[in-house]
Amino acid sequence: MKKYSFKNDYSEGAHPAILQRLMETNLQQTIGYGEDEFCDEARAWIKTYLQKDSAIHFVSGGTQANLIVISSILKPHESVIAVESGHIAVHETGAIEATGHKVNTVPTIDGKMTIEEIQNVLNLHTDEHMVKPKMVYISNSTEVGSVYTKAELTAIYDFCQANQLYLFVDGARLGSALTSSKSDLTLEDFANLTDVFYIGGTKNGALIGEAIIINTPQLNEDFRYHIKQKGGMLAKGRLIGIQFAEMFKNDLFFEMGKHANAMAKKLAEGIAAKGYDFLTVPSSNQIFPILPHPEIERLHEKFEFFVWQKIDDEHSAVRLVTSWATPEEQVDHFLNQL
Amino acid sequence: MKKYSFKNDYSEGAHPAILQRLMETNLQQTIGYGEDEFCDEARAWIKTYLQKDSAIHFVSGGTQANLIVISSILKPHESVIAVESGHIAVHETGAIEATGHKVNTVPTIDGKMTIEEIQNVLNLHTDEHMVKPKMVYISNSTEVGSVYTKAELTAIYDFCQANQLYLFVDGARLGSALTSSKSDLTLEDFANLTDVFYIGGTKNGALIGEAIIINTPQLNEDFRYHIKQKGGMLAKGRLIGIQFAEMFKNDLFFEMGKHANAMAKKLAEGIAAKGYDFLTVPSSNQIFPILPHPEIERLHEKFEFFVWQKIDDEHSAVRLVTSWATPEEQVDHFLNQL
Amino acid sequence: MKKYSFKNDYSEGAHPAILQRLMETNLQQTIGYGEDEFCDEARAWIKTYLQKDSAIHFVSGGTQANLIVISSILKPHESVIAVESGHIAVHETGAIEATGHKVNTVPTIDGKMTIEEIQNVLNLHTDEHMVKPKMVYISNSTEVGSVYTKAELTAIYDFCQANQLYLFVDGARLGSALTSSKSDLTLEDFANLTDVFYIGGTKNGALIGEAIIINTPQLNEDFRYHIKQKGGMLAKGRLIGIQFAEMFKNDLFFEMGKHANAMAKKLAEGIAAKGYDFLTVPSSNQIFPILPHPEIERLHEKFEFFVWQKIDDEHSAVRLVTSWATPEEQVDHFLNQL
Amino acid sequence: MKKYSFKNDYSEGAHPAILQRLMETNLQQTIGYGEDEFCDEARAWIKTYLQKDSAIHFVSGGTQANLIVISSILKPHESVIAVESGHIAVHETGAIEATGHKVNTVPTIDGKMTIEEIQNVLNLHTDEHMVKPKMVYISNSTEVGSVYTKAELTAIYDFCQANQLYLFVDGARLGSALTSSKSDLTLEDFANLTDVFYIGGTKNGALIGEAIIINTPQLNEDFRYHIKQKGGMLAKGRLIGIQFAEMFKNDLFFEMGKHANAMAKKLAEGIAAKGYDFLTVPSSNQIFPILPHPEIERLHEKFEFFVWQKIDDEHSAVRLVTSWATPEEQVDHFLNQL
Repeated sequence: MKKYSFKNDYSEGAHPAILQRLMETNLQQTIGYGEDEFCDEARAWIKTYLQKDSAIHFVSGGTQANLIVISSILKPHESVIAVESGHIAVHETGAIEATGHKVNTVPTIDGKMTIEEIQNVLNLHTDEHMVKPKMVYISNSTEVGSVYTKAELTAIYDFCQANQLYLFVDGARLGSALTSSKSDLTLEDFANLTDVFYIGGTKNGALIGEAIIINTPQLNEDFRYHIKQKGGMLAKGRLIGIQFAEMFKNDLFFEMGKHANAMAKKLAEGIAAKGYDFLTVPSSNQIFPILPHPEIERLHEKFEFFVWQKIDDEHSAVRLVTSWATPEEQVDHFLNQL
Repeated sequence: MKKYSFKNDYSEGAHPAILQRLMETNLQQTIGYGEDEFCDEARAWIKTYLQKDSAIHFVSGGTQANLIVISSILKPHESVIAVESGHIAVHETGAIEATGHKVNTVPTIDGKMTIEEIQNVLNLHTDEHMVKPKMVYISNSTEVGSVYTKAELTAIYDFCQANQLYLFVDGARLGSALTSSKSDLTLEDFANLTDVFYIGGTKNGALIGEAIIINTPQLNEDFRYHIKQKGGMLAKGRLIGIQFAEMFKNDLFFEMGKHANAMAKKLAEGIAAKGYDFLTVPSSNQIFPILPHPEIERLHEKFEFFVWQKIDDEHSAVRLVTSWATPEEQVDHFLNQL
Repeated sequence: MKKYSFKNDYSEGAHPAILQRLMETNLQQTIGYGEDEFCDEARAWIKTYLQKDSAIHFVSGGTQANLIVISSILKPHESVIAVESGHIAVHETGAIEATGHKVNTVPTIDGKMTIEEIQNVLNLHTDEHMVKPKMVYISNSTEVGSVYTKAELTAIYDFCQANQLYLFVDGARLGSALTSSKSDLTLEDFANLTDVFYIGGTKNGALIGEAIIINTPQLNEDFRYHIKQKGGMLAKGRLIGIQFAEMFKNDLFFEMGKHANAMAKKLAEGIAAKGYDFLTVPSSNQIFPILPHPEIERLHEKFEFFVWQKIDDEHSAVRLVTSWATPEEQVDHFLNQL
Repeated sequence: MKKYSFKNDYSEGAHPAILQRLMETNLQQTIGYGEDEFCDEARAWIKTYLQKDSAIHFVSGGTQANLIVISSILKPHESVIAVESGHIAVHETGAIEATGHKVNTVPTIDGKMTIEEIQNVLNLHTDEHMVKPKMVYISNSTEVGSVYTKAELTAIYDFCQANQLYLFVDGARLGSALTSSKSDLTLEDFANLTDVFYIGGTKNGALIGEAIIINTPQLNEDFRYHIKQKGGMLAKGRLIGIQFAEMFKNDLFFEMGKHANAMAKKLAEGIAAKGYDFLTVPSSNQIFPILPHPEIERLHEKFEFFVWQKIDDEHSAVRLVTSWATPEEQVDHFLNQL
């Protein structure tokens, strides 16, 4: 029997309602490349949350969203600031550099960016012998599961505005972030406190798909050229439009995030109750308990999950990820095994 | 009522058997990024046709396949040769140049490349003040619907081998090409007569997805790095694996191509019977009849299709595209209206 | 004894007055990177000709000037239009594509661009599936020795202005072009009828160096970052500043062009007097007489020059290039041998 | 009266013997692009030091040398490892990233790389979601004036060989490094212990010019294409050939380095004698004394130099750079003012 996996939130297909909708619409003819009625419907539903007439584009994955947004905005000598653990800094095979841009990294403990660190980068980059930092990139939730508060996001956005920096938020896991008990942010806030952000579908119950939201109108100029050039424009754009319409025409997107969070919370509370500590405060659908090595070995006989980071000779932090599809019995089963 | 569209072969969703399979497998957990068992199953089925242990990778679209393959193989000073009407030369927003490489174009009438034209390019590029042509790119079927014969492909491949050029075939419409009555080529031939080619799913009945087949082993080295860097690696790689497994575990892929061709053939024969000529000999699922302008206007009241090219003051060539989903009654309806 | 060479206009070192000036200033300390007093002096002298407060930057070569200017101005999806024989299209090893941009080429007979050809390119590029042409690149003198008239340059510039295209002139041989008897253009005209152009030193008597003149202020923003990033910013920027100051503090730059033209004219008239025709009308310091093959062979025993293009089985056009340093006796000698 | 500058080693023109040689050869005609007899002569002289038949290419500046070498060798997904203070990491406006490659940086105190730090980078980069480190870049002398010993260079090279990493040494200040009393390395060692290195002329008495030495033959394949594409191939390649021939036909290159070092040593010893400490051990022609702020202010009235780094509220390290041209009286003058 296959072991249950807490490795990630993209282990299953899609929410059944999404597949159902793909079936229903299957033979309707549409035009291609994201200009069909399903994409338009999805845009309209998303805008009811944004409360803003932002431009909305769909692409198939997160690295694609990141590289298209960043390379479309920056001029050749401009750079983007990210935390050292940021996805674009570590886990995208140099995708941003491949479009010609340096990623300036700053240290972080909890995965979050601070305006002090941004200021440090600006202080160090003063003339034409160095790149010109022009954008701040953050992820919410971050790569270690933490979430930004409205106060934090506002501080960063205000700093960016004051320093002619664009703010771009990678929302690969925005579904879980927005529905976290630690978060006081809404989609409307993201429309008002960022230049660009994206809403991740792949890691929150869609087959594929990310919705790029451009709030600063001049950044939308010719944006479709950039999507096409980088290979991000699907001929059957409907595939993503149908899914996002289904997720946002009611609260499905948020319900899936809530379920993932609830499962993570139950896991975290159960683990804490057994006396274990965490690498970062459990906040969203990724949690990082610190466990003794023999315990990790024993759990690995029953479950799949990643060992994240060695803490000391006897302990490591592991990463447990839940999703819209995580069955509560698997959570219970895990806690029972601990 | 919406007009029926002959605009392209990606107007509908996917073949119902594919959707059915997505439903059946939906809650099976898999690992990500194309290393799951469905992708492996798809690879195994495809190899039964290739009769060769080629490397097989899945990406979500054709421009992505083209830019990843070409940029992974060429060194910075090397270029790729394509016909003037080639997809990479015209319709990918400079995607190849964006990865740093020149596309050397050669004239063509029927959309096909010839060894004479390749030789001309080689003759003109003789020293380090010019790019170094290193790859030949062709499409089958071509952008104007023609298909290569085995003799033609063999001649090009032999010439490439003799001149240290890689041969890459864009198979966005390979399903229709391989099942064309004008074609004597098989997938096995493509495994033996190209360095790399790709099998298009998007335009032959899949939701999305293209299978890149690398026949020359050294070109496969580190290939997954390139897929990732260019944003082509899907977290839910299973989405493409499941579809290709379904298309190749029996003859579904070829049946869909045959249906599209049959519908195109019926259209072409009906049009020819009414005395109209064609821009290129109808061979696959794209045909280009030359019609009088009033006729085009009248047909546009009932059908969607593209006007392709002005022929003279009274006539233009139009493009009619059929697909796995084209209903025969729409073909009949079109012919009745003519 | 070494044969005299009419191969090009960069066969010798520099005008002796320039070397003299390098000697005189050798031990004066300056700051680096083009911000020294010699560069400023050169800028001031050049502006007396421009009659405009354009921005002026110095780089060491023509390909560098072209790639820095073009890549600094174009966004990733934008392209530059050039004639098929244009230097950036053929003889820079894909330098422009290496910065990510397509070069759209148009046919030409005499090396010059026309607004009809620009319009053709615009007509073909209509949506985001294709690159967006945004700049016109021309050379003066052209790669086949022809020169633009004020009427021609004005027509192109007006067309560019009306169509939101930037106009960039490669002036690698501007010294010869401006002093051609066929030319009615001045440096002041170039300041008013282009967005950017460059004045070539290397091919007109300097050791190295090209002066980039930016007439449209917003294109100058952060331009020094681009020079630095592409490796074009010399630590000893003084080397180019001293040379351009010497060439423009009196009429040395123009006198050198005139001498080259006078020698080419004498050559051309002598060749014409013997009944030979030319590939293009002799206009500047490059001429292209059409000679019988045995004559070419005989001349090759005494002189170095390039065979440019086969005309028919018995004749080829050759290229003869003169420079500031061409001795009149070598011209006479050549004509005597003919 | 202008203040004497210890800001850098490129404040003056060139060694008089070099200018003299430019005068003598001025009217000799040569072919272009680095294939002339002067370049060949320079190559031959340099090889007498290398004792190896390495390939030698000339380019005009250090950033150009770095970006051409690195982009010619690395494949798109490969990265280069440098120390945090490395020139390519900080002071080249993202030139390496602009060619598509990530620079992996590691911490350093004395400007030098260690194999421990290289190993750390390798440990962190394990799969296709991250770049693949493939080259180590070091500078000798380093950006803070330190020099590598033969034992250190050998350790790094052996580690690189064992781990399939290329080793590239930036020798912008190799003249001073090789003649440092702290160095036991020769040009022959660099030929044997690196894949590629370059010998800097600009910062050691030439007008411009760096000689790239490729010791690993396959890295030389098509290298001239890369030089041309990146704008590094001078039409008047003779300009650099003549200079390097002059510097290496006798020991001029080394004598200039020795003079710079002697002046720096005298400065350092004088400063130390007055009780001041240094940021790094004085080793080459860049020294970094730590001075009280009022002292720095006073010295700034008489001399130009850079304040490098704040040490505490009362002290900063300054950078003093000497060159082949530094007069001993200015050194004495400086020490007297202290």
